[in-house]
Amino acid sequence: MSNNRRHLANAVRALSMDAVQKANSGHPGAPMGMADIAEVLWNDYMKHNPANTKWADRDRFILSNGHGSMLIYSLLHLTGYDLPMDEIKQFRQLHSRTPGHPEYGYAPGVETTTGPLGQGITNGVGMAIAEAMLAGQFNRPGHTIVDHNTYVFLGDGCMMEGISHEACSLAGTLGLGKLIAFYDDNGISIDGHVEGWFTDDTPARFEAYGWQVIRNVNGHDADEIKAAIETARANSDQPTMICCKTIIGFGSPNMAGSHDCHGAALGHEEIALVRKELGWEYEPFVIPEDVYAGWDAKAKGAAAESDWNARFEAYRAEHPELAAEFERRQAAELPANWAEGAKAWIDKLRADKPGWATRVASGKTIGAFAALLPELVGGSADLAPSNNTKWPEAVAFSKENPSGNYMHYGVREFGMSHAMNGMVLHGGVIPFGGTFLMFSEYARNALRMSALMKIGTIFVYTHDSIGLGEDGPTHQPVEQIATLRMIPRMNTWRPCDAVESAVAWKVAIERRDSPSTLIFTRQGLPCNDYTDSQIADIERGGYVLSDCAGTPDVIIIATGSEVQLALAAQKALAGQKNVRVVSMPCTERFDAQDAAYKEAVLPSSVTARVAVEAGVTGFWAKYVGLNGKVIGIDTFGESAPADQLFKLFGITTEAVVAAVNEVA
Amino acid sequence: MSNNRRHLANAVRALSMDAVQKANSGHPGAPMGMADIAEVLWNDYMKHNPANTKWADRDRFILSNGHGSMLIYSLLHLTGYDLPMDEIKQFRQLHSRTPGHPEYGYAPGVETTTGPLGQGITNGVGMAIAEAMLAGQFNRPGHTIVDHNTYVFLGDGCMMEGISHEACSLAGTLGLGKLIAFYDDNGISIDGHVEGWFTDDTPARFEAYGWQVIRNVNGHDADEIKAAIETARANSDQPTMICCKTIIGFGSPNMAGSHDCHGAALGHEEIALVRKELGWEYEPFVIPEDVYAGWDAKAKGAAAESDWNARFEAYRAEHPELAAEFERRQAAELPANWAEGAKAWIDKLRADKPGWATRVASGKTIGAFAALLPELVGGSADLAPSNNTKWPEAVAFSKENPSGNYMHYGVREFGMSHAMNGMVLHGGVIPFGGTFLMFSEYARNALRMSALMKIGTIFVYTHDSIGLGEDGPTHQPVEQIATLRMIPRMNTWRPCDAVESAVAWKVAIERRDSPSTLIFTRQGLPCNDYTDSQIADIERGGYVLSDCAGTPDVIIIATGSEVQLALAAQKALAGQKNVRVVSMPCTERFDAQDAAYKEAVLPSSVTARVAVEAGVTGFWAKYVGLNGKVIGIDTFGESAPADQLFKLFGITTEAVVAAVNEVA
Repeated sequence: MSNNRRHLANAVRALSMDAVQKANSGHPGAPMGMADIAEVLWNDYMKHNPANTKWADRDRFILSNGHGSMLIYSLLHLTGYDLPMDEIKQFRQLHSRTPGHPEYGYAPGVETTTGPLGQGITNGVGMAIAEAMLAGQFNRPGHTIVDHNTYVFLGDGCMMEGISHEACSLAGTLGLGKLIAFYDDNGISIDGHVEGWFTDDTPARFEAYGWQVIRNVNGHDADEIKAAIETARANSDQPTMICCKTIIGFGSPNMAGSHDCHGAALGHEEIALVRKELGWEYEPFVIPEDVYAGWDAKAKGAAAESDWNARFEAYRAEHPELAAEFERRQAAELPANWAEGAKAWIDKLRADKPGWATRVASGKTIGAFAALLPELVGGSADLAPSNNTKWPEAVAFSKENPSGNYMHYGVREFGMSHAMNGMVLHGGVIPFGGTFLMFSEYARNALRMSALMKIGTIFVYTHDSIGLGEDGPTHQPVEQIATLRMIPRMNTWRPCDAVESAVAWKVAIERRDSPSTLIFTRQGLPCNDYTDSQIADIERGGYVLSDCAGTPDVIIIATGSEVQLALAAQKALAGQKNVRVVSMPCTERFDAQDAAYKEAVLPSSVTARVAVEAGVTGFWAKYVGLNGKVIGIDTFGESAPADQLFKLFGITTEAVVAAVNEVA
Repeated sequence: MSNNRRHLANAVRALSMDAVQKANSGHPGAPMGMADIAEVLWNDYMKHNPANTKWADRDRFILSNGHGSMLIYSLLHLTGYDLPMDEIKQFRQLHSRTPGHPEYGYAPGVETTTGPLGQGITNGVGMAIAEAMLAGQFNRPGHTIVDHNTYVFLGDGCMMEGISHEACSLAGTLGLGKLIAFYDDNGISIDGHVEGWFTDDTPARFEAYGWQVIRNVNGHDADEIKAAIETARANSDQPTMICCKTIIGFGSPNMAGSHDCHGAALGHEEIALVRKELGWEYEPFVIPEDVYAGWDAKAKGAAAESDWNARFEAYRAEHPELAAEFERRQAAELPANWAEGAKAWIDKLRADKPGWATRVASGKTIGAFAALLPELVGGSADLAPSNNTKWPEAVAFSKENPSGNYMHYGVREFGMSHAMNGMVLHGGVIPFGGTFLMFSEYARNALRMSALMKIGTIFVYTHDSIGLGEDGPTHQPVEQIATLRMIPRMNTWRPCDAVESAVAWKVAIERRDSPSTLIFTRQGLPCNDYTDSQIADIERGGYVLSDCAGTPDVIIIATGSEVQLALAAQKALAGQKNVRVVSMPCTERFDAQDAAYKEAVLPSSVTARVAVEAGVTGFWAKYVGLNGKVIGIDTFGESAPADQLFKLFGITTEAVVAAVNEVA
């Protein structure tokens, strides 16, 4: 490796060990091990403009082994992003842009939040899907306006995680040729040398997925790395895994190759020895000008973007509508006819009052909205016919047809969910994906990550309670609705009929700055009548669906399929008790309303309250208080026809009436 | 395939299609496709005694593609288990022993609950680990008393799920030669023909894991199946994957090979055609005597067990202590000195009052209890040094040392968790496994499955709040403690110091009929003083840790690291307000106490209440009511030193004092 290349890479090593030392917290080993690979990739291949992190055709870079965050911070700092040395010095400190793991929205140029292992590579698969899909939809002969790579670094931890199997298997099937991953094969994980717990023939595994695999690359030899990247870029039909043998903590005389340098500062003494070993004679956080010059990507990046802008103008000249549509989708603006079209669909449902299962209402709404939204990308984890996620006009995305707008994700819930997050992060598409509500559990951390990143992914879950019947307790959600509601910033919708379902979809589509989960029944539900103001109030998450004359004696709060029980109880109690029925399809949205609205719906003077939901009861205490009653289910379900189960578990009109009589 | 063998297999097909038809719900395709494989395995190889489902040395059989439940019910019925035809006729009906998916504890002979895909094979890996471990610990030259196979059927769905990667990669490393899996390669999943979303070279994938792979077995040819099983059984160093090409819905003239027969009844017309095609001339639910005779395993099974019993007596004669120990562990009885030893350790902590982080207290307790419990099997998903799960005397389990008692699971949280469930189901061991609390999310459905199955798996989670500091929001639990508490039948412990940690461990060890999660801090915590009755009350999940004189004005409820804030607030308010501090390390156990005890701890007359926990606040409404206050965190964390974060998010003594002053 040339002295100069090594010297440039050593800047990454020095910044990483010094920042970790200053914080006395962090992971120096991975950045020091992958510095040479990063130097070649970023200096010779990465297409990016440090001055514009939103340039549509930039290459995406993901550090799936996110604990090595100082690697990406070093790269961003050195190549000219707005990440000054003061931020490097503030690594892992409060209010810095350099948190312990790369967090989307903090340092410019960080494309996604990583740290939870295996998820970065999955984001990368999603980004590469979005790139291929947009290329399929927008590129035209002579005009290649979407043409960028997704580069992913990942380590042994990512390789062991199950989600890497889901994502990489799918990537192979889809032939994502623009996806290029670098495996940091350093043989070390936190418990020590991996051979006691990880002996996969990883290259063979990825060949089995249909990837191009480049074996035995010396991760400390720039020429070998360069040759591998050339081979990877030359293959447009397969994703490529470049397997790099590296030494964790490269440059540390006493800790290189050992897990001692994985997750702790090296210590001042060892750092001094590293400086000597690497010939890095500068003080901490001092980078000489020639090194900065060697890394600086500002001019090259500006030229690259400028060239692309010129090509985009040529595209616009020939395809003005496509160009405008591309810009609209990149800007994440909904179409001009969206609001009107969505309202028309909701009005139609109000008029027709179909007694559909809400999963059917969801499916029909998807079809109606997809006609308005070319950016909508459907999908399911192999439950399309059950989740009602595939509308008649949807076209499967595939290697052969990259312009498709429907993803057959296979039985890969976690992979689907975080690939969708990657698609959202990429931009230009609004993905949604379905599975049974129970299997939200397989994907739970991906939901959390979407909320953490403030991105508008839409998760569709059908078969939402014991109402799914015969499949039994393994498939019957009990605690899932409540637990989804606890994810900060998530909106969790459980609509009660076709109209609420359509409104939930509308709000989720419009909510581009945070994710939504949409929860639907298997079984049919009658459709309510709505006033205009009720329609508006559905978006507030909770509202008076059916009121009594005068002050209520009791308020019944219900969601989803149990709203009909509340209404039936109200009817049964007519003349005996003043009962108000509140439909609460999205508790998080209701909680976010102003105090006056909440007081109007749930007057604090009315403390006699009953909540009804076919799920765990504890959640509802915050609405009904210590003296309220909750009709729900706190045990696992059973396998039987659904109507028998609602009786067995006491989720019936009679039970609601009895509860009302208990509290008032 | 011989006519007779096919005829026997057709009994499975007939029962499966007829039971699904009668229920008008279920999955006939997989049982009809795998019937020939099952016939060879069960009639020629399975070592089992239908009269004793608890025989220690029986082979284990797992249907990982659990939707094909009629396959296992047919096998159990036909071979002579206590599962009469009336139960087959009641398939998927309320209170039957034949629920929609195989549920552990319902039909005798069902070794685990399956249905959530990929988890059955993971259970199988756990069972094979337990078998190998017990063989390593108990077999002696000339005495092979632990020597059974684990057989797993699995389909495309299991193969796509990430957990199959985690489990099977680990199985390859561990060289689990007694594990033999059959891949039902029928090319069909719910969305249709799998080639659009699943094109793995599955045999190559499993070879990459180090498995023996037998390719291209015709799953409808008994001789090929038999030859494959022979090859599998002959290899004691590697698990074996037998890749069987099958036709889903084999025997159905119009639906075989199509996803139409996957998840719905075939219909009366098609069923009549199947009868004709298969030459199965009997009425629904009628099995002729010669077919019963061909399947009957009762005599063979009794003889096999009797032979083993004789061999066990010979073992006992030579190794009486080992034999007694084996029987104790099989019976899941704790050692005679357990209670005394556990008490001695807790007493020591009471006396020493170490100010350990609770993860340290957990680690020390593990060491103390492991000395009493040879059945304790530790482990971590590659975080042993952080989770404090490996005690000094622990020995890593490996191919080379199968008598070890510590599992290096690798970075495989879901695989670890459900493999542990398999180990518990196998019997003879008490496994626990650790990771960061955040990554409980990767494994969540395995936790639920342990609770559903009523088995005593122990899940250890450290780094339980923003108190983990610099690693930032991806690693800082906020909603996780509350969501774990919502799993029915789970006990979720969050102890406040070394003593509560040790008591939590003791209760979890003793709780063999349901799972426990033990949640520990990264940071150090002072140790409280305890009276004898308080020590006893810790086991009740909530108790008065520090009371005031007279009736309390306010009750502060706290858990874990926030108990010290409650105590400090009580001190700060001394002389101003009568404050009672309740420590609530396990809310589920507290909820299960009788009304008198709960009233004594939380008198209903004292409605001024404050709860403190570094997690989502909504959970605590059920203890503090609509007018109480909760000090917690409802947003994501940040990356910074821990002490700064508690201040930033307002989880401080001052905040508790202010809340107390607000409510009273």
